[in-house]
Amino acid sequence: MEVSFVIDLLGTVAFAISGVLTAFKKRMDVFGIFIIAFVTALGGGTLRDILIQAPIVWMRDLTFVYVIAGASVFALLFRKKLGYLRRSLFLFDTIGIALYTVIGVEKGLAADLPALICIALGTMTACFGGVIRDILCNEIPIIFRKEIYATACVMGGVVYFILLKTSLSTDVVVILSGAVVITIRLLAVYFKWSLPNIYSKDELNS
Amino acid sequence: MEVSFVIDLLGTVAFAISGVLTAFKKRMDVFGIFIIAFVTALGGGTLRDILIQAPIVWMRDLTFVYVIAGASVFALLFRKKLGYLRRSLFLFDTIGIALYTVIGVEKGLAADLPALICIALGTMTACFGGVIRDILCNEIPIIFRKEIYATACVMGGVVYFILLKTSLSTDVVVILSGAVVITIRLLAVYFKWSLPNIYSKDELNS
Amino acid sequence: MEVSFVIDLLGTVAFAISGVLTAFKKRMDVFGIFIIAFVTALGGGTLRDILIQAPIVWMRDLTFVYVIAGASVFALLFRKKLGYLRRSLFLFDTIGIALYTVIGVEKGLAADLPALICIALGTMTACFGGVIRDILCNEIPIIFRKEIYATACVMGGVVYFILLKTSLSTDVVVILSGAVVITIRLLAVYFKWSLPNIYSKDELNS
Repeated sequence: MEVSFVIDLLGTVAFAISGVLTAFKKRMDVFGIFIIAFVTALGGGTLRDILIQAPIVWMRDLTFVYVIAGASVFALLFRKKLGYLRRSLFLFDTIGIALYTVIGVEKGLAADLPALICIALGTMTACFGGVIRDILCNEIPIIFRKEIYATACVMGGVVYFILLKTSLSTDVVVILSGAVVITIRLLAVYFKWSLPNIYSKDELNS
Repeated sequence: MEVSFVIDLLGTVAFAISGVLTAFKKRMDVFGIFIIAFVTALGGGTLRDILIQAPIVWMRDLTFVYVIAGASVFALLFRKKLGYLRRSLFLFDTIGIALYTVIGVEKGLAADLPALICIALGTMTACFGGVIRDILCNEIPIIFRKEIYATACVMGGVVYFILLKTSLSTDVVVILSGAVVITIRLLAVYFKWSLPNIYSKDELNS
Repeated sequence: MEVSFVIDLLGTVAFAISGVLTAFKKRMDVFGIFIIAFVTALGGGTLRDILIQAPIVWMRDLTFVYVIAGASVFALLFRKKLGYLRRSLFLFDTIGIALYTVIGVEKGLAADLPALICIALGTMTACFGGVIRDILCNEIPIIFRKEIYATACVMGGVVYFILLKTSLSTDVVVILSGAVVITIRLLAVYFKWSLPNIYSKDELNS
């Protein structure tokens, strides 16, 4: 539990920093930057909890709020040096979506929902903070246009339910399906995978 | 019940296909296209259920999820031929908003809400999937700018409550108020009705 | 109670009118204009009630719906003369955010939430109607970019909790913290205060 909590916090930090950097590019003021950081880090889980009508954790346990505030201040102060951090940020973010995916799947299971919906909830937890960030910044959400990102979460969720039918313990299922998310994401970026292009030459030129 | 269920599915199909076509124009990838299809078909009803704090049906009954997935694959494969289908799509969509309006009104009644709010919930069920679709695609929602569309739903809702005060059976009320939505929408498109222009020449040129 | 109710209505009127004027600039039709007016006036409180899983008041008590509809019709009819009203509108709006902030803080307290979250809920109640308005109008939300606005609400919320630890009665706490919001907002506009610029010359030119 403790290790996963630390990793969860690192994921939150990465999401918050990605929010700060996006808001910064849009020349938002300090208030706007903080809001975007919070929304990026907590938006996906909040939407999930609204949909499954579960209590929203960050409203009662302030740990994540403090962590996001700290990460945002850090990102603002050291924004010029964050270029060097890009690789570690990417790793945190990847670990973050893996853990958020598993958390979302398990929240769905706890609410007794079908596997397909649990996988959707896991993907939503991992990806929709970024979607809300992009909407608030007046952009078409990046995950709708680029890269294997949500797809890695979906795959992790699918693997979770396949492994659940084996005799493996829940801990092992969690670790393995999280590892699937991380592996697919890393391979996708390394080999520049993307979803198959569905547009013909004519369509792309029109 | 069975006929209305089939029509409801046809409406869902039409909404999903309209989502696919919008996402396609924005050059989204396959993942983005599916998300937009789901959101267009289920977003209005989901927002309604969040507002009235009712359980969200598609999270427990997967029929609609499968139908939307199927319709999306169909729309992607046959997108070049959908031009021929435009008229039937328009009909499905019109039947869809009629049925979604009545469903929304009845959900509001079941939650014991005032007539005005029930009519708003009906209109929301029919129209807000499209609003969320347009926001995700970074457009000003089309129903805020063009055509009699939401207005047909509002009218259908008003007729529902007028007829409810008569001695007609609920079935007849449902059919007649749905027919009002369909008729107004068809007439509006045929005669190119739009809401009265409120902008003076000067304002439109400024 | 009665005075605060009247001021609350004046705030709602100001928010509704600001929605109408924004939608009008976007050349929306009458339906779109009404929706934007409602969303601007009720969006913040609705989001708050969804987050704290409280019942949504305007769905059962129609007073505010009627007031918003009336204010919208008024704003549309007299839009050419609203320039003269700009100062009173600004005052209503300022009183409105003060009262909405206090209402939001108190709803959070009633739900037994931590002070930090209560302050966030107060700010959300006052500001997020405007955020949703800007998203629907396809703009980057104005409060993320300009002016002391949300900051005044945050300050009012902080003062509320500081005063709560004194022996002052709740009524006095409410009035004083509302006055803080109003005073900061008025001073900020008068002296053209803004949040400290965090962008270097290079960054602003890039």
